Amino acid sequence: MEKWMGGDMHPSYRILMGPGPSNVHYRVYQAMSNPVIGYLDPQILACMDEISEMLRGIFQTKNQVTLAISATGSSGMEASFVNFVEPGDVVVIGVNGFFAERMTQVASRCGAQVIRVDQDWGKMIEPEKMVKALKEHPEAKICGVVHGETSTGVRQPLEEIGANCKKGSTLLVVDAVTTLGGYDVKVDEWGVDVCYGSSQKCLSVPPGLSPITVSPKAMDVLRSRKTKVQSFYLDLLLLEKYWGEERVYHHTAPVSMFYALREGLRIVFEEGLGARFRRHEVLGDRLKMELEGFGFKPFAQDGYRLPMLTSVTIPDWADDAKIRSRLLNEYNIEVGGGLGRLKGKIWRVGLMGETCKLRYIHCLTGALKEILS
Amino acid sequence: MEKWMGGDMHPSYRILMGPGPSNVHYRVYQAMSNPVIGYLDPQILACMDEISEMLRGIFQTKNQVTLAISATGSSGMEASFVNFVEPGDVVVIGVNGFFAERMTQVASRCGAQVIRVDQDWGKMIEPEKMVKALKEHPEAKICGVVHGETSTGVRQPLEEIGANCKKGSTLLVVDAVTTLGGYDVKVDEWGVDVCYGSSQKCLSVPPGLSPITVSPKAMDVLRSRKTKVQSFYLDLLLLEKYWGEERVYHHTAPVSMFYALREGLRIVFEEGLGARFRRHEVLGDRLKMELEGFGFKPFAQDGYRLPMLTSVTIPDWADDAKIRSRLLNEYNIEVGGGLGRLKGKIWRVGLMGETCKLRYIHCLTGALKEILS
Repeated sequence: MEKWMGGDMHPSYRILMGPGPSNVHYRVYQAMSNPVIGYLDPQILACMDEISEMLRGIFQTKNQVTLAISATGSSGMEASFVNFVEPGDVVVIGVNGFFAERMTQVASRCGAQVIRVDQDWGKMIEPEKMVKALKEHPEAKICGVVHGETSTGVRQPLEEIGANCKKGSTLLVVDAVTTLGGYDVKVDEWGVDVCYGSSQKCLSVPPGLSPITVSPKAMDVLRSRKTKVQSFYLDLLLLEKYWGEERVYHHTAPVSMFYALREGLRIVFEEGLGARFRRHEVLGDRLKMELEGFGFKPFAQDGYRLPMLTSVTIPDWADDAKIRSRLLNEYNIEVGGGLGRLKGKIWRVGLMGETCKLRYIHCLTGALKEILS
Repeated sequence: MEKWMGGDMHPSYRILMGPGPSNVHYRVYQAMSNPVIGYLDPQILACMDEISEMLRGIFQTKNQVTLAISATGSSGMEASFVNFVEPGDVVVIGVNGFFAERMTQVASRCGAQVIRVDQDWGKMIEPEKMVKALKEHPEAKICGVVHGETSTGVRQPLEEIGANCKKGSTLLVVDAVTTLGGYDVKVDEWGVDVCYGSSQKCLSVPPGLSPITVSPKAMDVLRSRKTKVQSFYLDLLLLEKYWGEERVYHHTAPVSMFYALREGLRIVFEEGLGARFRRHEVLGDRLKMELEGFGFKPFAQDGYRLPMLTSVTIPDWADDAKIRSRLLNEYNIEVGGGLGRLKGKIWRVGLMGETCKLRYIHCLTGALKEILS
């Protein structure tokens, strides 16, 4: 293949109402068109400092080690376990969905002995059940929970679990991939030690980065490891040296994605966190009401439904694949299907960041009316 | 911080003549502005197929498993060891620079028993020395070498080493981060089993992706592992299922970077591989001649100098930091300093992909004339 004959690519302009990515603000695309510069250029280092500062605002933390990992949200999960688990360590994980299940796999691959606290998919894990497991396993090095379970649309309350972890040596690791930037994530107040998110959901930046914040307590655990972190790429001690004052080269930073994240974060703060959370809440409620009007039943437990990801069971008379495919191909609307054991059983309708607008709810209800009539 | 007060970011338009990233074609920036779509959207799956096909062309391979890892070039190195090494495995590594040294660290962190074949930084490793080590360690699972050592500017010949690995069970892992897209990388002909590159050097795409290709022999080794790959994010068995026909969700793909890579690869094939390699060779020679005219002495061994990365020792009378800082701040030209033990001793001047043009050599020599006069 000396010459490549493929033509220009013109992807359709989708309304992204799936589990993420969400739609991206035009200013973020513009920022990505800024010229690439070197990984130790004073201008990129200043950009990284600003990203850290804004991420601290969104995570609501004072943690010095707050940065963006140069890979997608799944790498944030991996970094949260590979840095802290040494072979044989006990890890307690609350399992009520696909991503919580994945946490158990990631932790196991690091050599952890995983204690599961199981709950039905679609329900939150009663905090007292988690606290009980932690009391039974005071030696646990990590307690892992998913704040917003993308596979079920469930929000997990964290206050009690955090208060319990604060008292002992167990580190609380929280997956905020779906909630970060769209819901209150109070890292310091709740006592979360490691919290990671993603660029492409409520922050409305293209996928490719995983913001993460690490408490001093967790950094102490990391520094007192007996073995080296297996992953060189995700080693937080090395990343800290690059993002911190030392500026030691670790890897070639994904500069264009940093530009994108910086601009996406600015847009978040222009709106203000409170206003942003209210927008997600109000429009999430509106979407749930509209979908119920079509005969879709809420799937997630009442009182613990995520605003930015609405899960609904598909009525018997509706053809999952056919309707979603018509939505995509005829109306350019992406709606998420069920993941794992929920495939074919539920829809996951996202209203994240830029996509969280009344106009898109109107687009979806308009299209559904036509398709179902 | 409810409101963020930072202003717009306007990075300078640098001429990137360092060790990478290189300058990016305007069509690649345009491609990144294409609207983001979902990670299982038929349009992104088609884009991924095209990326695989073009990467096979550049790696000069028929390997089915040829894809881009969703992280920077360093993750390609990590993927090449974490997938194949199980604790206690013997790995032979040729060590003649910073990135080869890093290979030994990455392999050790995976639990490998590393056999080093050391050589002075700045020299290639005599193939017969590598072959000798491989004959002494027929049980070696992996033989690792760096094709283009970014820290020294040395090109490593691979024919003999590859011919030897082909005969036995040892897998040949090659780092082509610097050479891929700018130099002949003959994966199948040379008998390379795992070869990884980066988006941001001779491919002239922003940093953030690591192209990788894996031979059937290496996939067999992977499938017969006794333990699971520790990294979930870099597990090639899972990535194969997402990039291959099964299309099983693994992680949210960095869609905008895929657009960028697809366009960057198209530009490579429009020029043609042969023409591209010749351009790098001719202009690399020209740059070396110009720098010698200024009193800089070539650092890398004669006959094994990389075209796309020229290393030169700094004359005693020249102030490394001061000149490079003036080049950056007054002339917007980035030139790389020495890495690791070569800090302050050499310069690394890149001519990669889009930056590999006569006009930029003129810019650099013009600026140097003014600064040194």
